Amino acid sequence: MSKSKYLSGDSTAINEFLDRFDAFLFDCDGVLWSGDIVFEGVPETLNLLRAKVLTNTTSLPGKLCKYKGKKVIFVTNNSTKSRQDYLQKLTNLGIPASLDEVFGSSYSSAVYIARILNLPPTKRKVFVLGEAGIETELRAENVPFIGGTDPALRRDITPDDYRGLADGSLLDPEVGAVLVGLDFHYNYLKMATAFQYLRRGALFLATNVDSTLPNSNGFFPGAGAISIPLVHMMGGVQPTSFGKPSQAMMDAIEGKFKLDRARTCMVGDRLNTDIQFGIQGRLGGTLAVLTGVNKKEDWEVEGAPIVPQYYVDKLSDLRQSE
Amino acid sequence: MSKSKYLSGDSTAINEFLDRFDAFLFDCDGVLWSGDIVFEGVPETLNLLRAKVLTNTTSLPGKLCKYKGKKVIFVTNNSTKSRQDYLQKLTNLGIPASLDEVFGSSYSSAVYIARILNLPPTKRKVFVLGEAGIETELRAENVPFIGGTDPALRRDITPDDYRGLADGSLLDPEVGAVLVGLDFHYNYLKMATAFQYLRRGALFLATNVDSTLPNSNGFFPGAGAISIPLVHMMGGVQPTSFGKPSQAMMDAIEGKFKLDRARTCMVGDRLNTDIQFGIQGRLGGTLAVLTGVNKKEDWEVEGAPIVPQYYVDKLSDLRQSE
Repeated sequence: MSKSKYLSGDSTAINEFLDRFDAFLFDCDGVLWSGDIVFEGVPETLNLLRAKVLTNTTSLPGKLCKYKGKKVIFVTNNSTKSRQDYLQKLTNLGIPASLDEVFGSSYSSAVYIARILNLPPTKRKVFVLGEAGIETELRAENVPFIGGTDPALRRDITPDDYRGLADGSLLDPEVGAVLVGLDFHYNYLKMATAFQYLRRGALFLATNVDSTLPNSNGFFPGAGAISIPLVHMMGGVQPTSFGKPSQAMMDAIEGKFKLDRARTCMVGDRLNTDIQFGIQGRLGGTLAVLTGVNKKEDWEVEGAPIVPQYYVDKLSDLRQSE
Repeated sequence: MSKSKYLSGDSTAINEFLDRFDAFLFDCDGVLWSGDIVFEGVPETLNLLRAKVLTNTTSLPGKLCKYKGKKVIFVTNNSTKSRQDYLQKLTNLGIPASLDEVFGSSYSSAVYIARILNLPPTKRKVFVLGEAGIETELRAENVPFIGGTDPALRRDITPDDYRGLADGSLLDPEVGAVLVGLDFHYNYLKMATAFQYLRRGALFLATNVDSTLPNSNGFFPGAGAISIPLVHMMGGVQPTSFGKPSQAMMDAIEGKFKLDRARTCMVGDRLNTDIQFGIQGRLGGTLAVLTGVNKKEDWEVEGAPIVPQYYVDKLSDLRQSE
């Protein structure tokens, strides 16, 4: 059975760990913050990883130089926010970042649809179940879409809807794909409409399939709770997902950032999304933090399917290398 | 491989079939009607089965007397309607019926909760995801409930909701069960609320788990599409269902109508609900009609798991016994 190496409090091990990587992919919720509260020491830890110039290099030049100038990328499955929204959140929480460092599942989906999917000219529209974050990213990639935050769909289903959806007269013939993310304004009419497009052959895509989303120290329905009724109605057909642990997202990240996977480490709190994402992507390493969903008992059980290579109690323990 | 006997056009076989049973359980949608259109000859067929006195018994007294006076019971998974609503629909479509002949999944659920479940005195309330039909049946059985059609839940989720649901302050401590039926007014707030009750140990109940519901010659989300996100969020925990093919419903029907199962036949259009319901319930027979979801090809394939004992093209073919 593989075993996870515990780094907290062990400065030698932390330095060896940091030496192995040039880039770190960070999950956000449960790693950097919970809801709107940033964890203590997180901005300083990220600054330490990124710093190109350290003020005290004269005292320990060799050691400190090894881990400065790391690439930092924020990888989030939250589809409700655009990259710009995420940048705003990072800034508000005191974490300096640039737009290019943010990689979300909505962005990942939009890039895939625009640049890889190659929908036929007569089927280029996407029917969206989701919020403004998805729309922003689709617009940025010039992907035409309907649904989403359209207020015309925020109402009860009517007898005319039943007829028009069943016979197809209310459907847009140019829709070639259904993209499902987290939709706080999800309703019966939208679900019924998405289902009719899928039954007529539209591609089934999802920003991510997390069943739950943390908020206020609790768990709430995630994007997977919006797509699973469609999976069920379609007799088990699963969507192509662009969020962690989907390797479509890893490929997009690698392509954009020209990463050396062997010198990249995924940092996260969830085994079945973050850590699995890094393992499947054959990254050089995975680091679990205990400030989110999973606890070390989850991977220390006999036969645990997903084991992080390293773990710390909290992200800021990496500062113990100083 | 078991084989289904085809009755249409074979008056001898129809007479033998009718002779074998005293009671018929009828699925409604796809058997008696589609949406709001009753199938041709259905009222006459039901009258023939129920008739206690036939005008032409002098000509063929022996044969006709054998199949008159059958018990007819309408068994529906549609949870949005109460028995009274269903009676109204039957009457409107020209099918004479009495309240006692109607058995729906909402009624089945209410009877089970009130008479069998025995929730502890401090946990007697039910949180409902569903429409007025469920509420009517729960009230008739004196089961206290919240949720359902309450307009206070027909809105967006707020930051106060997140906090109050996560810390439990917005939850009713007397809720001991969550009952999920088809809810046309389903939304994120209701789904999140139901999930919090389940996480705190409330029993997970469902009127039925059909993934789709026919309407306007098409298919739309059914009650199973409302419960499946909760199944997903709860890590695969399935609800106890009171609709076909659940044997909780069969037990309730048997108890109420004092049926002899060996002389009872289930009539339906769906293999995985209606026919399965009859087979699992060890009824004397099952009859499939080809006016709904399944076609004979569905059970004529090698290794088909569910095969009806008999089938007809349409219900009114049973009149060919005359």
